[in-house]
Amino acid sequence: MIIIGEKLNGSIPVVGEAIINKDNEFIKHRAKIQAEANATYIDVCASVPEDMEVETLKWMIELVQEVTDVPICIDSPSPHSCVKAIPFCKREGIINSVSLEGEKIDVIFPVIANTKWECVALLCDDKGIPNSVERRMEVFENIMAKAKEYNIDPSRLHIDPLVVTLGTDETALTTFAECCRRIKKEYPTIHITSGLSNISFGLPARKLINQAFMVLARNAGMDSAIVDPTNRDMLGLIYATEALLEEDEFCLEYIGAYREGLIGNKK
Amino acid sequence: MIIIGEKLNGSIPVVGEAIINKDNEFIKHRAKIQAEANATYIDVCASVPEDMEVETLKWMIELVQEVTDVPICIDSPSPHSCVKAIPFCKREGIINSVSLEGEKIDVIFPVIANTKWECVALLCDDKGIPNSVERRMEVFENIMAKAKEYNIDPSRLHIDPLVVTLGTDETALTTFAECCRRIKKEYPTIHITSGLSNISFGLPARKLINQAFMVLARNAGMDSAIVDPTNRDMLGLIYATEALLEEDEFCLEYIGAYREGLIGNKK
Repeated sequence: MIIIGEKLNGSIPVVGEAIINKDNEFIKHRAKIQAEANATYIDVCASVPEDMEVETLKWMIELVQEVTDVPICIDSPSPHSCVKAIPFCKREGIINSVSLEGEKIDVIFPVIANTKWECVALLCDDKGIPNSVERRMEVFENIMAKAKEYNIDPSRLHIDPLVVTLGTDETALTTFAECCRRIKKEYPTIHITSGLSNISFGLPARKLINQAFMVLARNAGMDSAIVDPTNRDMLGLIYATEALLEEDEFCLEYIGAYREGLIGNKK
Repeated sequence: MIIIGEKLNGSIPVVGEAIINKDNEFIKHRAKIQAEANATYIDVCASVPEDMEVETLKWMIELVQEVTDVPICIDSPSPHSCVKAIPFCKREGIINSVSLEGEKIDVIFPVIANTKWECVALLCDDKGIPNSVERRMEVFENIMAKAKEYNIDPSRLHIDPLVVTLGTDETALTTFAECCRRIKKEYPTIHITSGLSNISFGLPARKLINQAFMVLARNAGMDSAIVDPTNRDMLGLIYATEALLEEDEFCLEYIGAYREGLIGNKK
């Protein structure tokens, strides 16, 4: 599983505070613990007003790169901030994200066209998140047409089919899973990603819903997740699910993660 | 989900000790906490030599029935002990189990033929647990032929497709899940059951494998489980999985279980 570490997001109150206070050590520490927990990418989201976003991303990205070589996932609602942050990164990473909203895709795709940068693409447009599987697949096909236009291989895309709140829409998982299956069938090398907590918004004991969602989404073809890699229970379930789905021969990865102390009870 | 409470099994060391010591209060307490945790059935397994099994089952069943009306799941490797224990039960429950091993099915099916008793049927025969999906489905079809002969409706059967150890067979879950899908497709009203811990035998952090197995098996059609209903994490994941699979409108069961204090962090 591709693990996009989510712990450096300015919308998390303690991170937002560290950004205001220019707390270098806090940022570096959060980068380090995610790298140690085997994050594949480290998401960096400033969550500040746009006029100070690029400088904030620069500061955060440079701090992360002081402590780890794990590539960056540049996370901003502004496509302009995303492309301006690319030169700060020592290695190719992921842009998070495009969708069919506004000009996003036309700002970002030309810039990453002839690079090794990857990109998260959300299945929504100016009208919001489509309700049905069919409408989301229409958005998907339009995104893939744009990707083709800019010669971006499907293997460089992380499609986020978008998950809504289970408490208000009982098809939240089943719609998501059906999108996963159709997308993977059409493009076997594409990645599918998701955050793991929107699904449980407003429900009690959210951890349980998030965990079961992850197992079911993984089973439907999701192979990437925006997640806290230091969440041992969730990480453990990811390793367990992959072993059960015949993606970890002799459970070697699972046993390895346990021996490294990443999953299971803390020693 | 049908929850068959597993905490009164003589093969669990503390239970075996309580049986030797004729510890009435221990047996009643374990029955009570399982009933309070919403067990659908309470499994009663003596795990003693056969010559004292029937009297031990009688003692256990009567103690359970002193504290709860939850029906009994009579659990014995001996089909003769199973049928002899039926008269001790105040209500119809489940016999655990038949298979195509030896004379089991021919001893038990005639006795429960014209009753409301249900029965667990394991997909194995005198040669052991078949390796392939196809061979297990052959055993299944032979069991269903016997059920038809005795006029036992599919809805009275809890098929256990049998799960092997993931550490030695990476198809443990995928074989199980494929059996579930085929069985449910052929007989939509049949129940599918399983224990939730064999899969992780020999692996570290077994809880993780057991939990992910449950979510994936539920998704494949398993609707019954032999489990410790007081295991809050597992019970919580069962409720969460059913809500995600559109089997719990508005998450009412999930929220209800949380409010009753059955799942989520202990208050």
